[in-house]
Parts: sequence; structure tokens; C-alpha cells
Amino acid sequence: MARAVLALAGGVGGAKLVLGLSRLLPPEALTVVVNTGDDETFHGLHVSPDLDTVTYTLAGLANPETGWGVQGETFQAAAVLERLGAETWFRLGDRDLALHLRRTELLRAGWTLSEVTRELCQRLGVAHAVVPMSDQPVRTVALTDEGELAFQVYFVRRRCEPRLLGLRFDGVERAEPAPAFRQALVYARALVYCPSNPLVSLGPILALPGVREQVERFPGPRVAVSPIVGGQAIKGPAAKMFAELGEAPSCVAVARRLRGLCDVFVLDQVDAARAEEVADLGMRPLVVPTLMASEADKVQLARRVLEVAEAA
Amino acid sequence: MARAVLALAGGVGGAKLVLGLSRLLPPEALTVVVNTGDDETFHGLHVSPDLDTVTYTLAGLANPETGWGVQGETFQAAAVLERLGAETWFRLGDRDLALHLRRTELLRAGWTLSEVTRELCQRLGVAHAVVPMSDQPVRTVALTDEGELAFQVYFVRRRCEPRLLGLRFDGVERAEPAPAFRQALVYARALVYCPSNPLVSLGPILALPGVREQVERFPGPRVAVSPIVGGQAIKGPAAKMFAELGEAPSCVAVARRLRGLCDVFVLDQVDAARAEEVADLGMRPLVVPTLMASEADKVQLARRVLEVAEAA
Repeated sequence: MARAVLALAGGVGGAKLVLGLSRLLPPEALTVVVNTGDDETFHGLHVSPDLDTVTYTLAGLANPETGWGVQGETFQAAAVLERLGAETWFRLGDRDLALHLRRTELLRAGWTLSEVTRELCQRLGVAHAVVPMSDQPVRTVALTDEGELAFQVYFVRRRCEPRLLGLRFDGVERAEPAPAFRQALVYARALVYCPSNPLVSLGPILALPGVREQVERFPGPRVAVSPIVGGQAIKGPAAKMFAELGEAPSCVAVARRLRGLCDVFVLDQVDAARAEEVADLGMRPLVVPTLMASEADKVQLARRVLEVAEAA
Repeated sequence: MARAVLALAGGVGGAKLVLGLSRLLPPEALTVVVNTGDDETFHGLHVSPDLDTVTYTLAGLANPETGWGVQGETFQAAAVLERLGAETWFRLGDRDLALHLRRTELLRAGWTLSEVTRELCQRLGVAHAVVPMSDQPVRTVALTDEGELAFQVYFVRRRCEPRLLGLRFDGVERAEPAPAFRQALVYARALVYCPSNPLVSLGPILALPGVREQVERFPGPRVAVSPIVGGQAIKGPAAKMFAELGEAPSCVAVARRLRGLCDVFVLDQVDAARAEEVADLGMRPLVVPTLMASEADKVQLARRVLEVAEAA
């Protein structure tokens, strides 16, 4: 634990770098803290989309076409749920359902989300530590021109179509960082921001009481990888969200969100011209290829991130 | 409602006659009241095996090989649940899971089991009234030489291997017959005992407060079909259970359980020699073929039952 890398991640984009890191670091040397602001209840089950994406990715079970969900998934239950009149805009696969059933059962039995996640990871053969950002519920709410929408309603049901006016993380002031997160904030030797949405993936993590302050005085190197390349989000709605919130979407906009919280900011070659702006924000820019199409790409980027952290 | 037939049923055996009755009676003329003493919670979901068997049968969805479960079922979720360390001795199929998810969700939202069952039936195209015996929980407990076992533990997990010493219906004294059951007890023109286990299927129904008394003074004909033929249960553990409780398993043993509650007792041709013993119990014996292999058999037996009820 004492020498571990602490990685902060959301879903698909972040999970790619997490996979790379997991290929280079032994299990005891990596703690992945995952956003739970996207968690939602479907059919009475506790669904943690980001935790699941990271877990499935590390377990080698993720659907390579989507980055989320389970490879070779079937949707028999979803078809019946639809016939039965249940809301099925968030379609849960049959295998995926099993994970949510088990998680929900253990939570109801009094386990914390951290404990449940550790158990599920162990059962699925994930050796690295995957940790929910908090064991208390935090729910991201999108404030839009159509009113307040629970994050999954905004993101999946409404496909991010409503115009975003702001974000709120309900419950965050009463939540606390999960125990393993608190430990890693003190003992980790390096902090890595995976290329996740800074607004709705890293945002809730940093909004937890005390986290921002601890990251500010984090003793080791803090390295971020931009999820926005050439003004576009590699995955997800980050660019659209930035634009609607009045900020031109770019790696610089991402860096601005991490001002005072980051030492090295990794941006793609495409954005090389923005390096100076990043430097102006008080971070050392590192320009490297950041697209992670293959597993080799993921490992390569993770290697660069770890190297720069070592050198910092 | 005023001219309806009230049928009491358990699972697979009873559902066969229910199907036959449903082919002869319009929806408004049949109320099927189903045992819920076998209900159990699996993975946090409310499972009602007998209700589901009757519902799937009437919906044309039942697995014809087993009589329970869904035709063409898959077990992706069950395989993952097993990998995740969940107890999976009661294997739930993917489609079946959807029904339990929806039922549980609606129950948690405050619906009664009667209301949920009506909704699920409607969605699955079941027009006849399928009614849980009670909206309050009743749980059958098998008292065995290995201790007290919840019914599904005894029945499915332990395959009825422990020796049965007795039965208890937990909660039955605080339960009441479901509203549609209470109505049918007053207004139905005939009462039909489907060929279901008299101990653990009909037993809990008759044990509900006031039911035995109302059946005793039921004004119309009461017709029972023996689930035991030639000393063997057509389906399920009825014969073994009778034997272990010290009663030779036979149609007569079944009839004895319905003494004072039945006017016409239908027994199979194989048991023709026992007709007199049935008569001695104060019931009119009717000897007909009772095996229901094909749908034509089911309709034929249902026709005989309705005819004898008309004539009584």
C-alpha cells in the first residue's frame, strides 16, 4: 500500500488507462478509485456503471465493442421486463444482472459498497484494488433546460440531448471517501487522473469532503491524462457538456479544472500547440500519443504516465 | 363473478387441470387461487413458484418438459451468480428472473401480491383470474429428521430427502384470504380442487383463517381430483410425504384430507377398487382417466369435472 499508485477513474475512457496500469503494476501497487455518482437503482437493483466497467475491464470480461457491459452478453431478461411494462431504457444484460443482484443482496445484508466491490472483484479474478469513491450514496444530477435529471436519465435515456446548465452531486456533503481511498490519499506515491470526464467522473470524486484539500497537499507527483483530444471527447459527452457550460471544450479546459491539483498534464500530440497554455496553469505539459485503441496503446500510455511520475 | 368456478391449485399438477378449465370457461367464469406457502426470497427477489407455474401455463410460456419454468429458458445470470458465490441451488432462468424482478419492484412500491399478479398476468396475456391465496406472507416449513427446513430448502435443495415429521405454515394465522379469493368463496357456483399436493399445496390454502369453515358451508358442488394415482404421486413428493407422516399414500388418503370439504371425488381408473372407501368418507366417487399427458387430456378431464359439478 505504501508505494501504491492511486488512480481516479470514471467509466470507459478511464478504464482503458486502468487496464494499462494494471499490466505494469502488481496488485498491491495500484488502487483504482472509481466514481459512483452515476450509480442508479434499476428494477430495485443497485447498479454502479463505472465500477462495473472498471471491474469487467480488469476481469477481461468487458465488451470490446462498447467498452462497457459484458462480452457475449444476452438480453433475455430485458426483453421480458419490457413485456412486463418495466422501464427498460437502461438495458441490463443477463450476466450483468447477476452482478447487480449479488451486489444488491450483499448491500441489503449490511455490507458496504467497498466490501461488496472487493468481494465481486475477487470472485471475478480481479487482483488489483477497485474501490468506490465512497460507501455513502452520491448522486449526480444534471441541471438542464428540461429541468433536473438524474444522471442516467440525462446520459442514457435522454442521450445528453437536454442542454446542460450545471451539475449537482446530491449527498456529497454527507458522504466520505471510502476507507481505501482515504488510505491511498495518505500513502500513495503517485496520483493518476485517468482520462475520464472531469465534470461528471472526476468531479464527484474531487467533491467529496476533504478530498480536494488532500489532493492539493498530496506529497507525490500528480499526473493527469486529458480525455479531450482536439476539442472532442474520445468517449462520452465531455465536450458537449463543456460547451454548454460556456467553456470551449479542449484539453486546456480539462487542465483548468485540475488547477492546483495536478503536476503533470498529459495531452495528445494533436494538441501540442496548447502545451504552453497548460504550462501557464502551473502544470508541466507532456505531449504524447494518448489514443488507446489497442491493449499495447493502453500499456504504452500507462508506461509514459508512470515514467513521468517517477521522474517528477 | 357470480357464476364463476373457483379452482384451488398448487404448481405443476394443478396447473394442468387449470389449463383444461381455462379452455372451457371464459375468463370471467374462472378464478384460480394458488398456494403461496412455497414462496421464497432468492437473491433478494420474491419468487412465487406456484403462481408462476400457473401463470406461465396459462400464458403458453411454460416449459413443456418440466411443467415449470419458461420454455426456451437460458441461464446466463445463474452461471454468473454461481461464479459470484451466490447460492444457486434454486436456479432462476434469465426470463424467469425478469418476472421476479418486476414482482419484487412492484411489491416494494406498495402493491399487494394480488395486484402484482393481476398486472403480470395481464402483461403476459393471461385473461383468467390468477389469485394468490393471500396477500400476506405464509411460509411452509417442513419439520424433518434434520430439523426445520424452509419449504424450498426441503423440496429443491434437499430433494425431499429428509424424513418428514410434520408441516407448519408460518404466518398463516395472521394472513387472510386474498380479496378475490374471499369473493369467490361467497359467489362461485362450484369449487374445484385441482390435483395438487393436499399437504403442501392445498394445505396452506385451507389453513387460512376462515377458509375451512367457508368451504364447509360452500353452497355449490365441491369437486376434487386426486393427485395420487395407484399409490404414486403423478408429480412431486406427495406419496413420500404421506408415507413418512404414517399414512399409506393413496387417493383415499387424499380424500380423507378433504373430508367434509368435498362432494365429488375424482379418482383414476387404476384406483377403481378404492371407490367405495371414498364413498365411505361421504363423497361421491367418480372414476375416470385422470392422467393429463396432452392438452386434449387436460380439457377432457376439466370437462368431466365441470359436468359433474353441473350435475351435483
